[in-house]
Amino acid sequence: MAVTSESVVDVCARSRAASLRLGGIDPAIRDRALLRAAALLRSRTAEIIEANATDIEAARGQGIEGALLDRLSLDAERVEAMAVGVEEIVALPDPLAEVVRRETLRSGIEMKQVRVPIGVIAIVYEARPNVTIDAAALCLKSGNAVILRGSSSAAASNAVLAGIVAEAAAEAGMPSGVVELVAGGGRGELAELAQQKDLVDLIIPRGGEGLKRALEEVTEIPVLYAASGNCHVYVHAEADQAMARAIAVNAKVQRPGVCNSAETLLVDSSIAAQFLPDALAELRSAGVELVGDERARELAGVEVGGATTEDWDTEYLDLKLTVGVVDGVDAAIEHINRHGSGHSEAIVTGSAEAADAFTRRVDAACVYVNASTRFTDGFEFGLGAEIGNSTQKLHARGPIGLLELTTTKYVLRGDGQVRG
Amino acid sequence: MAVTSESVVDVCARSRAASLRLGGIDPAIRDRALLRAAALLRSRTAEIIEANATDIEAARGQGIEGALLDRLSLDAERVEAMAVGVEEIVALPDPLAEVVRRETLRSGIEMKQVRVPIGVIAIVYEARPNVTIDAAALCLKSGNAVILRGSSSAAASNAVLAGIVAEAAAEAGMPSGVVELVAGGGRGELAELAQQKDLVDLIIPRGGEGLKRALEEVTEIPVLYAASGNCHVYVHAEADQAMARAIAVNAKVQRPGVCNSAETLLVDSSIAAQFLPDALAELRSAGVELVGDERARELAGVEVGGATTEDWDTEYLDLKLTVGVVDGVDAAIEHINRHGSGHSEAIVTGSAEAADAFTRRVDAACVYVNASTRFTDGFEFGLGAEIGNSTQKLHARGPIGLLELTTTKYVLRGDGQVRG
Repeated sequence: MAVTSESVVDVCARSRAASLRLGGIDPAIRDRALLRAAALLRSRTAEIIEANATDIEAARGQGIEGALLDRLSLDAERVEAMAVGVEEIVALPDPLAEVVRRETLRSGIEMKQVRVPIGVIAIVYEARPNVTIDAAALCLKSGNAVILRGSSSAAASNAVLAGIVAEAAAEAGMPSGVVELVAGGGRGELAELAQQKDLVDLIIPRGGEGLKRALEEVTEIPVLYAASGNCHVYVHAEADQAMARAIAVNAKVQRPGVCNSAETLLVDSSIAAQFLPDALAELRSAGVELVGDERARELAGVEVGGATTEDWDTEYLDLKLTVGVVDGVDAAIEHINRHGSGHSEAIVTGSAEAADAFTRRVDAACVYVNASTRFTDGFEFGLGAEIGNSTQKLHARGPIGLLELTTTKYVLRGDGQVRG
Repeated sequence: MAVTSESVVDVCARSRAASLRLGGIDPAIRDRALLRAAALLRSRTAEIIEANATDIEAARGQGIEGALLDRLSLDAERVEAMAVGVEEIVALPDPLAEVVRRETLRSGIEMKQVRVPIGVIAIVYEARPNVTIDAAALCLKSGNAVILRGSSSAAASNAVLAGIVAEAAAEAGMPSGVVELVAGGGRGELAELAQQKDLVDLIIPRGGEGLKRALEEVTEIPVLYAASGNCHVYVHAEADQAMARAIAVNAKVQRPGVCNSAETLLVDSSIAAQFLPDALAELRSAGVELVGDERARELAGVEVGGATTEDWDTEYLDLKLTVGVVDGVDAAIEHINRHGSGHSEAIVTGSAEAADAFTRRVDAACVYVNASTRFTDGFEFGLGAEIGNSTQKLHARGPIGLLELTTTKYVLRGDGQVRG
């Protein structure tokens, strides 16, 4: 565990040393550490809440309120939820157990490509103490050393929480340095962390676009972004319209503040006159602000504002939706590939041909036929807890779960082979 | 195909359009394009050699000679080898055929995680016309659009070669723009290419450290480096010493100019007096210049220079070797994790325990027991042609073959599921 006076480099060096000692550590030790962490969360709930109260008071003093303050706040129920979350991660299959490839080479060498931890993972996040536990648990379960770079406004809470995981890890026999906390001393400290390319293997930011841009400018280390989502629902000519309406409403309304909610509804021109009035009325009555193109506005039946050029590229994360009319599946695919962020895209159709074209040619992490984009999620996908959703194409695309926190290593055993 | 007057952005935009039309293209079309390219290479050999002669003449005029000139030169035999190489790539399994994961989710949605092309891949390389064909063939086989950024000193050869692949692709029914050539107009053009993050998904440089650094400074696009290798052979106390000698000599001498050759020999202190004299004599007689630490020099029996601090971190790519004496497997692992580049590392030992510690704790793409590091290679690993070896931990580690030129996409089919 870091003490405040220590430099970021020293913290990273200790993480690297720990990660090298973690190589091939018994899965039972990893699980024991996490179960002990869950137990300590429960037995030290009062201490956690007390530390959190300090953070809350300071935040109130700085005028922080509403959703931000709520995210920072812990109570007994939320601590219990963190403990349960850790136990759920323990119950997931060991991501290091897989042998990806096994082959006897023509040289007679026995080759195995095995899964191994990435090494040292830094998680950079905002004032949400539960991320401290989530991120640490996922990294430890996958055999990685973790550097937690929380927000200074959650410093007291994070110190107790990270201390609990570090203590549990030590008790279970993991090397010291496996869980490190960097308190969150502003952008200078972040830049220093982001430049330790010999000591840190991967940075995962969990936060908004501002954090992402700040990192992009300074980092020399690979970054896995939990990405934004500009997601579309396209209602094809041969859609079941009741199904399409339910999917469009769910994708927009059920939880508008998350990345897998829809921001644009595209409707085929051949059914727009029939589909739009009821669907848009339902969206309006759910409190959704609507903007659209000319054709959508004409057929809407309800008030729809004019969509600006920016609207088509905007992730509202709010009860607002852009509505467009397109001529056929090709036009829909083209629109989505131009404006989408490659997160989650849906077609509603009864046509196997249209579904096939859409799933083949839409360039996104998750492509849906006749289902809501809201299903993009590690738990829904049966992968367990996740650390976000990636729209990158390299290394991880879609939910970033335990497997995505690993890399591979080739282990080759011979009996004296030399190359001729 | 690019014409010289076109901007890099226009070329990249055409590649992106082609890549979007490639989504889910029939493997038979990809293979047909490549077989046609192989046929055209053979039927247009004279034209290729004529274009190459122009490049050779210009290179001679600039005083280029020796190995550089040899790499640039094509003759009938080398063109035939390129055609055979393309046919070998055709014969490899389709990397897009794999369904990585298939599951019925608790929501009833049918989920498939399928392999898809990365999209647009730019290959940046030096004056080696054969890379034009290799790289284009690997990208097309894996369903990617490719931007070839060759060297201006191979411009005439590359124009004919890339033209042949583009012609073959068009004849097979692939979209135009699937193979693009950027002539190689210096670092400014490279910087422009490296900034097209909306149009290019991945850059793979094939060249020296200078090219790597030039790219690192300017790129906004993910880069997969075909990396340098500072590889070690460690002779453990319980090694078969004849085997160890053969492996050390092979790893250093058989082809010293490549990344998987050894640069450092570590010998356990308990057997150094017995092992070093014969082994070093054999290396000396093979023309290897030796430098070493104090203990190695004392026991060497032959002349060994003093190793500088830099020697331990240097990839000589030449007949030079650093020799060190270490106390036990832990010290060897620590030395390798500190100085190695994470490429290929070998232990020679009869001890299962030492082999196990070494393979678990050495942090490298390829870890060998009782075999030469020289086996790190796509063909030797049974993966077929490769585009280099990666020491990165993200996305690809080890040989960069066809599979590493793909990403995945989740395709989810429901019957109206919405999230509750």
